[in-house]
Amino acid sequence: MPRSLVTIDDFSNAEIEAVFALADRFLTEMAPPGKPWLIRGRKSWATDKILATLFYEPSTRTRLSFESAMLRLGGGVISAPDGNLSSSAKGETLADTVRVVDKYADLIVIRHPWEGAARIAADFADVPVINAGDGAHEHPTQTLCDLYTLRVGQREKNPQNADKSLKDLLHDLTIVLCGDLQHGRTVHSLVFALARFGARIIPLPAADEFDFPEHVRRRLARDYNCFPVGKKDLPEGATLPADVLYFTPEKPHQLSLWQPDRLDISLRLTKKEQRSLKGIKDVDVFYATRLQLERKDADSGTVEYPIVDSQFLKQKPYRHSRVMHPLPRVDELGYDIDRDSRGIYFQQAAYGVPVRMALMMALMELAPALEGAESAKAGKYPVYQNVGGIECRNRNCVSAQPGERRYLQPRMHIMEEFHVTLRCAYCDHEQSPLVMSRASTKKYRTDVESWREIRAEDLLFFADETAARQAGHEPRKTRVRHHEPEAAGTGASPR
Amino acid sequence: MPRSLVTIDDFSNAEIEAVFALADRFLTEMAPPGKPWLIRGRKSWATDKILATLFYEPSTRTRLSFESAMLRLGGGVISAPDGNLSSSAKGETLADTVRVVDKYADLIVIRHPWEGAARIAADFADVPVINAGDGAHEHPTQTLCDLYTLRVGQREKNPQNADKSLKDLLHDLTIVLCGDLQHGRTVHSLVFALARFGARIIPLPAADEFDFPEHVRRRLARDYNCFPVGKKDLPEGATLPADVLYFTPEKPHQLSLWQPDRLDISLRLTKKEQRSLKGIKDVDVFYATRLQLERKDADSGTVEYPIVDSQFLKQKPYRHSRVMHPLPRVDELGYDIDRDSRGIYFQQAAYGVPVRMALMMALMELAPALEGAESAKAGKYPVYQNVGGIECRNRNCVSAQPGERRYLQPRMHIMEEFHVTLRCAYCDHEQSPLVMSRASTKKYRTDVESWREIRAEDLLFFADETAARQAGHEPRKTRVRHHEPEAAGTGASPR
Amino acid sequence: MPRSLVTIDDFSNAEIEAVFALADRFLTEMAPPGKPWLIRGRKSWATDKILATLFYEPSTRTRLSFESAMLRLGGGVISAPDGNLSSSAKGETLADTVRVVDKYADLIVIRHPWEGAARIAADFADVPVINAGDGAHEHPTQTLCDLYTLRVGQREKNPQNADKSLKDLLHDLTIVLCGDLQHGRTVHSLVFALARFGARIIPLPAADEFDFPEHVRRRLARDYNCFPVGKKDLPEGATLPADVLYFTPEKPHQLSLWQPDRLDISLRLTKKEQRSLKGIKDVDVFYATRLQLERKDADSGTVEYPIVDSQFLKQKPYRHSRVMHPLPRVDELGYDIDRDSRGIYFQQAAYGVPVRMALMMALMELAPALEGAESAKAGKYPVYQNVGGIECRNRNCVSAQPGERRYLQPRMHIMEEFHVTLRCAYCDHEQSPLVMSRASTKKYRTDVESWREIRAEDLLFFADETAARQAGHEPRKTRVRHHEPEAAGTGASPR
Repeated sequence: MPRSLVTIDDFSNAEIEAVFALADRFLTEMAPPGKPWLIRGRKSWATDKILATLFYEPSTRTRLSFESAMLRLGGGVISAPDGNLSSSAKGETLADTVRVVDKYADLIVIRHPWEGAARIAADFADVPVINAGDGAHEHPTQTLCDLYTLRVGQREKNPQNADKSLKDLLHDLTIVLCGDLQHGRTVHSLVFALARFGARIIPLPAADEFDFPEHVRRRLARDYNCFPVGKKDLPEGATLPADVLYFTPEKPHQLSLWQPDRLDISLRLTKKEQRSLKGIKDVDVFYATRLQLERKDADSGTVEYPIVDSQFLKQKPYRHSRVMHPLPRVDELGYDIDRDSRGIYFQQAAYGVPVRMALMMALMELAPALEGAESAKAGKYPVYQNVGGIECRNRNCVSAQPGERRYLQPRMHIMEEFHVTLRCAYCDHEQSPLVMSRASTKKYRTDVESWREIRAEDLLFFADETAARQAGHEPRKTRVRHHEPEAAGTGASPR
Repeated sequence: MPRSLVTIDDFSNAEIEAVFALADRFLTEMAPPGKPWLIRGRKSWATDKILATLFYEPSTRTRLSFESAMLRLGGGVISAPDGNLSSSAKGETLADTVRVVDKYADLIVIRHPWEGAARIAADFADVPVINAGDGAHEHPTQTLCDLYTLRVGQREKNPQNADKSLKDLLHDLTIVLCGDLQHGRTVHSLVFALARFGARIIPLPAADEFDFPEHVRRRLARDYNCFPVGKKDLPEGATLPADVLYFTPEKPHQLSLWQPDRLDISLRLTKKEQRSLKGIKDVDVFYATRLQLERKDADSGTVEYPIVDSQFLKQKPYRHSRVMHPLPRVDELGYDIDRDSRGIYFQQAAYGVPVRMALMMALMELAPALEGAESAKAGKYPVYQNVGGIECRNRNCVSAQPGERRYLQPRMHIMEEFHVTLRCAYCDHEQSPLVMSRASTKKYRTDVESWREIRAEDLLFFADETAARQAGHEPRKTRVRHHEPEAAGTGASPR
Repeated sequence: MPRSLVTIDDFSNAEIEAVFALADRFLTEMAPPGKPWLIRGRKSWATDKILATLFYEPSTRTRLSFESAMLRLGGGVISAPDGNLSSSAKGETLADTVRVVDKYADLIVIRHPWEGAARIAADFADVPVINAGDGAHEHPTQTLCDLYTLRVGQREKNPQNADKSLKDLLHDLTIVLCGDLQHGRTVHSLVFALARFGARIIPLPAADEFDFPEHVRRRLARDYNCFPVGKKDLPEGATLPADVLYFTPEKPHQLSLWQPDRLDISLRLTKKEQRSLKGIKDVDVFYATRLQLERKDADSGTVEYPIVDSQFLKQKPYRHSRVMHPLPRVDELGYDIDRDSRGIYFQQAAYGVPVRMALMMALMELAPALEGAESAKAGKYPVYQNVGGIECRNRNCVSAQPGERRYLQPRMHIMEEFHVTLRCAYCDHEQSPLVMSRASTKKYRTDVESWREIRAEDLLFFADETAARQAGHEPRKTRVRHHEPEAAGTGASPR
């Protein structure tokens, strides 16, 4: 089975480094004088290959970026750009479509409105699949481009950084994430990657309702050991533009001590960690994002939006900040920064080509970037292959589509927390189920202590008591503390 | 004038063989180890050429398949994929569009909702034209892929078949055609080709209303000498999954004896033919098709559909059947056959690439496949170029479109039957007209005996008596037996 | 900043000649035997390059023509053909889109419904931009193809013409422009080019309401010194198919004498000019155009249209006329001319490929066509960069779009006439403003004599008195002759 890129966690740190080293080489070889971020010309590195771009949602920038990258490598492109694929209109399933298209192409790039769609494509295709955005879920190549841009910036900041690893570079980074942090797969993918590499993250939502959703904060803590530190907990001398900073401490915290319903605990910092925070006076990068109006309800009204422009950047912490933006912008980013050397968002867009070239070369096994490296995700959490009970509650998940259910069973990762949590293997939405044992069907529990008593082969999960009863399992035990985490992407934080 | 492929009959048996031999060579050279059905890599065989894909109806699979094939040959592609071409919206005729596009490309692949549209394109373009589906009329490259898949299967079945001609291979084939046989250009094109090559065809419609339409059955008999044999007429020992089998007898039947209003006659088999039927216990191929819901009226209600799955294939005649499907499937084909070696529909889709590569090479005269070979259709029936009288009655025919009538005259093939029948040279729909003689305008007739008395240059056809009178030809003679064959594709069998 | 082609005036005569010489070479090298107008095959002249086609309005012919041209040059193509670009739907500005796409491609071809959009693209892109049609404004590559076709025809007419310059060839040309001269960027671009090269133009509008609009006639006179000569002013012996002929006299007229409100004056011809007109008995070229129904109001009713067919061409002046048409045609051009050697509109379409190949080679600096040559437009009229006052009145102008106003200021060319006129630097629409002086804000004037008294740095323009007052400038002087030229493209001539 070929390697694919569906979520940023599909690649290990070493793999991301290897892809970036390849992108470096492409830029060294192809960039025109004075524009080291730009790819010009075409090579003969992939003349044997054909890329298929399947876009079930329209896109100009992302699709053209991939197609340009493939042409620059010497390959060919076939494209279904229309956002409304004909076979899909005829009722064809995703699994069937990719099993036909993989006969025509050597690599598939897919964008789809359903969350988890790219995972299905990767599971069924005989060729590598790249997720170019699946609903509100992930957009990992945007994150790769962002990381690459951050890496370039950190290297330029200090000549001594030239040989540092991505982890070392980003560990020294202080980045403000501004705008709409609630919606938008782009900024979610990015914040997970930033946490994973240990950056200091300062959230600056456009308004309270645009802050990170609960599920993102839970995942930051659980998967990446990244916790909020409030202003009041900061050591003296640390000035911050926001009330909260996310911090990945050197020493892993005891996850079992962490309680999801008390997420707002301040992280207790060690002396060493406190010292490291004292230096934060400058923000290295200001990452602005667009209000995802098309993903909001029509009646959500108008929103006051902070505008990042020359005036805004005169504030002390931002004087030396590079300004990034995934584009397209609307009103949140002033055009007066376009000619300011701090505004690097068009270079950020330009890096999309070398990074995607490198990614495709790696996935097509034309470059050794992925040889032997292990996925960041592999084996992290055990998988529960559902046999008739529990389903993903995300209505936009690929596993919730009636047509796809012809061949597709729900699949969940099991995570231990204060309560047992199931995470959908397709869309990463989470739920806290009823847990029962085949061996003793009359009991049920939701807490970690008791579910650990059940043998793996006896595990049974149900959405709720009704579902358990319908399946012939009468819940009896009363030790119920049924905790329901917020569904990802619903947009309402329980605060 | 360049050769084109509009209907499967545009190619002779020898030409189809030559195209398949070319496809064999491509697979031999390009297929990766262990996947002899798959084309990988790109060659430099057509680097000088450009393919234009003009899709007035959206399509993913067919368009991408052609484009991939051209890229694999080394050529370039320009594409109008949007199903709603701008020039067409501005009122441009098909003839004009292709006469502009043939300046930009060396080969045109066209899909169009009007029946006969591809014929117009081929008539006017200076470059070869391939019909990728014209309304409910034909889809000959799908049929080529199906025939190629059948050929591979028959060869694999028996090592002695390796050197057999397509005709010899298919003459030994027993194939079930299942599902929606009423609608769908794909299965109609296929059944004509199967009849032409002498296969034994077992129709298994999803329901009575999905059986082959009258015009298909008429054409099977008239053009391909292929007649139904009912179960009761079969020799002892022949077990069949359906009530009817279509049979192409060794010895041509006397067509003039055949009466279209008595189509359900049983074919009388010779001893030799009866012997050949005795062996039919196994079905070689089970060809399933999709219910063409998008071509049905919205209010046609739900349909009970037989599902072909592992369970279904446990029936005795199907135990060794290969299962084919033109895809996309909806519910009629179980996903449990995907991993069954009998399910070869994804390989069938894969064969689309080498077959289309070979076809394009042949039409662009880069390979000698078509040199000197004669079309199967050429000269079969004389043509009547209408001069003001009769028109095609198919409202979806290209010759019935007001815009196209600016340059286009109806053109009919004259066929002798019990009644004189005219077949539209564009869409193949048939009608039985009034026949009159210029030399003696006061008489009219519809029967073959009398129309043969008229000299070719005196022939006059009219749709009916009213039309004749309006043209100043008063019908007088009373020997009227005006027979109206069902219009093709209307979907209502007069049974 | 790279050279672009937004309006035909962006290229000097020498540059157009150089592009045509390049197109000649491509045809010499690539045309198949017997078809000297046709490009076949592919070369390796631009293998390093990628073309991006951005079509915000759908188009088959123009887009495919460019893409074919690039493939014939050996380059690659990425395309956004869908007429409704996704980034645009997300609120992205044109300036941002092209600054991303110029990272992916080496050349951008853009079609857009807003007038002036291509100018914005050219202003912001780091790569050359070609205007493939911006609203009702310009379509300069169509004009290049038309000029090239005219040049071929004039050369074929007389062997002595082989070495003549385009200017000398077209100066001898008599051309009828027929059909819809009111709407349609194509015929407007063409008539300006014809005037610039000194051709004799005979307008033959389908009806009075389809005659050239006022602004075109004004510009013909002002920019190209091209005036109407009525039939009654013609010398004896000159027979014309229409009442008016446009004439570019040898000796420049005194522009300051020309009054825009008396546009219908007859030009006074010199003896030499009169002699040159005596010879006009034959029309060299009959250029038919389509009624732009899609640009008309829905309730404009039906129009009687003259049909150019074999019968029509039997009229004496047209017996030797070549017939051209930009296509698509509807009813205005008979299909019976298709097989007439005078009908050269499909060759005209074919020339689109070599001309666009040459143009792209020149703009990408792969051929020396543009080296050192000066634009025809450069420095023609001074520019007034608006600082808060006057705006373009064309609602379809790119500078009138709220989204684009985030970064875009109105910009006007100042032209001296009887009244001061401002021409929008984006869409070329004109208006006659109030003129005031910073030094003496209490006066205002619109006539040329008085505005010349104002120093350039003191110039202030306002749309009208209200706008002046709102800006704190009270108009007092009473010498008001406020003339309002017709807005371009509104379609109503004040006659």
